[in-house]
Amino acid sequence: MKCRKCGHEAVINMRQHKLALCSEHFLEWVPEQTQRFIEKYRMFTPDERILVAVSGGKDSLSLWDVLLRLGYKADGLYIGLGIDGGVDYSNQSHEMCVKFLENFRSQISSVNVTADDGPQTVNTQYLIPKLHVVDIAKLYGETIPDVAARTTRGRGKPCSVCGLVKRHVMNRVARDGGYDVLATGHNLDDEVAVLFGNALTWNAGYLLRQAPMLPADKPGLARKVKPFCRLYERESAAYALVRGIDYIYDECPFAEGSTSIAHKEILNQMEKDSPGTKLQFYLSFLRAREQGLFAEQAAHVELNACEKCGQPTSAPGLCAFCRLWERRITKDE
Amino acid sequence: MKCRKCGHEAVINMRQHKLALCSEHFLEWVPEQTQRFIEKYRMFTPDERILVAVSGGKDSLSLWDVLLRLGYKADGLYIGLGIDGGVDYSNQSHEMCVKFLENFRSQISSVNVTADDGPQTVNTQYLIPKLHVVDIAKLYGETIPDVAARTTRGRGKPCSVCGLVKRHVMNRVARDGGYDVLATGHNLDDEVAVLFGNALTWNAGYLLRQAPMLPADKPGLARKVKPFCRLYERESAAYALVRGIDYIYDECPFAEGSTSIAHKEILNQMEKDSPGTKLQFYLSFLRAREQGLFAEQAAHVELNACEKCGQPTSAPGLCAFCRLWERRITKDE
Repeated sequence: MKCRKCGHEAVINMRQHKLALCSEHFLEWVPEQTQRFIEKYRMFTPDERILVAVSGGKDSLSLWDVLLRLGYKADGLYIGLGIDGGVDYSNQSHEMCVKFLENFRSQISSVNVTADDGPQTVNTQYLIPKLHVVDIAKLYGETIPDVAARTTRGRGKPCSVCGLVKRHVMNRVARDGGYDVLATGHNLDDEVAVLFGNALTWNAGYLLRQAPMLPADKPGLARKVKPFCRLYERESAAYALVRGIDYIYDECPFAEGSTSIAHKEILNQMEKDSPGTKLQFYLSFLRAREQGLFAEQAAHVELNACEKCGQPTSAPGLCAFCRLWERRITKDE
Repeated sequence: MKCRKCGHEAVINMRQHKLALCSEHFLEWVPEQTQRFIEKYRMFTPDERILVAVSGGKDSLSLWDVLLRLGYKADGLYIGLGIDGGVDYSNQSHEMCVKFLENFRSQISSVNVTADDGPQTVNTQYLIPKLHVVDIAKLYGETIPDVAARTTRGRGKPCSVCGLVKRHVMNRVARDGGYDVLATGHNLDDEVAVLFGNALTWNAGYLLRQAPMLPADKPGLARKVKPFCRLYERESAAYALVRGIDYIYDECPFAEGSTSIAHKEILNQMEKDSPGTKLQFYLSFLRAREQGLFAEQAAHVELNACEKCGQPTSAPGLCAFCRLWERRITKDE
């Protein structure tokens, strides 16, 4: 298989795009595509400050890398969840993020920045990114598995609590740090698995809020973007590999047996039988919504500020996050 | 496995309902359920005249049987498509319908009719059903495979043409015969496969028109109902088997390799992993629509009467059905 651009040996063949590329042109293609999605879905502008949620995995580190190479002002946020799972999962993940940043900083002088009007010199002070680290156990006194163990959320699995805590912390750090936007590394496979699950249950609230860009339409909520939402998981993995980004290979130990992994397997089968199925599923969903398939009021929820943390919540009084820790205090007393 | 109602040996175990039944109680359960769906989705009343589209398969013959046993005035409509496929498919199908009717008529005196207020005597003149037969080749000069072969519809497969022709003929016979409603034997597996396909492409028109009951909201359109829409395929097959209804076992020879069969396989896998998946998928869809998930105007289409047959069409001039035969005439001239 030859690269379509230069004829050299290809490192990846993207059947759904009928496009094979060599390593050099693939490393160009991913940022080009990302820039296209950033503009198409009006995610952010070069003036805005971006907080990238990094987990130490291929998607979020590749995203951070791409955003920095595109010249965006992107800092990282790592949330230490205190998950061990026999593989020292959280510590390993943290280390990957730190290592990425060190490598990136050491390379910074040689980075070619591509902007709208071609390669150019960029004020490098913006390009030296910061990594925020929030350690849940240190800050709130318990790890995620510990909190999950004493709540009824998530039927014995910490995933629901974990999602709740991460959303809260990401939003808080974005708000307190004065960031314009919060970026996550969700790839197409992630988005499609979630969409598939939401279509199976026809959950109006979830269906209407699944988007490449969610505006900050409530006071205290950060704008949320997913610049890799149209990139297949294997493309994001290939980017990390070819770019030489070291990342944590293990899935979260709690992910095993999850519904979204079961859905991913089904979708992988469908994609194999008919390349492009996932992309078409996602794009036709975005198009249908754009064209008014859904009644916007179907997902309307009244939000008010949490009495304790001030973040928006649909519950009266405390938000779900604050109630999570409130219960602990009550129990300890 | 024992019958939940009487403790005798069960003939079927419906995992999604956690319900096992013996043959006697299963033969009671299917009509009870069907009656429940007829009322719930306001399909028709005992006064109305029903035209049941029968194909000779398990679903439509079981449906006809159940409707007659419930005391409804239900005539059959068989459409001869002229499909051979090496198994004399259409002729065999026709024969099954004729045989069903003969058997039913011979049993008619011993049929126990269940009505709202328990078993009762019913004026049996209503219970002697008629079978309308429309032979496409005799009436229009060509079989379905022949028509399909000279059109661009359906990419080499007659399924699209077949659907178009059947919809037209069913609607015409219902209208001309003064029927209040047209009933088809679509089971839950059929409905779910279609819904799955429509969700994968997010087709607003199709999503909004998929329902257990479609009202006759345009002049010249018959009300359409699917009384078996919540019955699994294996339940409808079991009903035919236990009731002793002979039906054509072969799938239509052209169905092989179809998208809906591929979707059915995926859904079967999901159902196996988690019994009830299909039913939940369908019911949550109906519930979400009821609760206003979709913007009703998303599927709004202006219809006008076809200049030739008078049936509603979105096209100006002739409807797609009349254009199908128009082209033949032009070609022959």
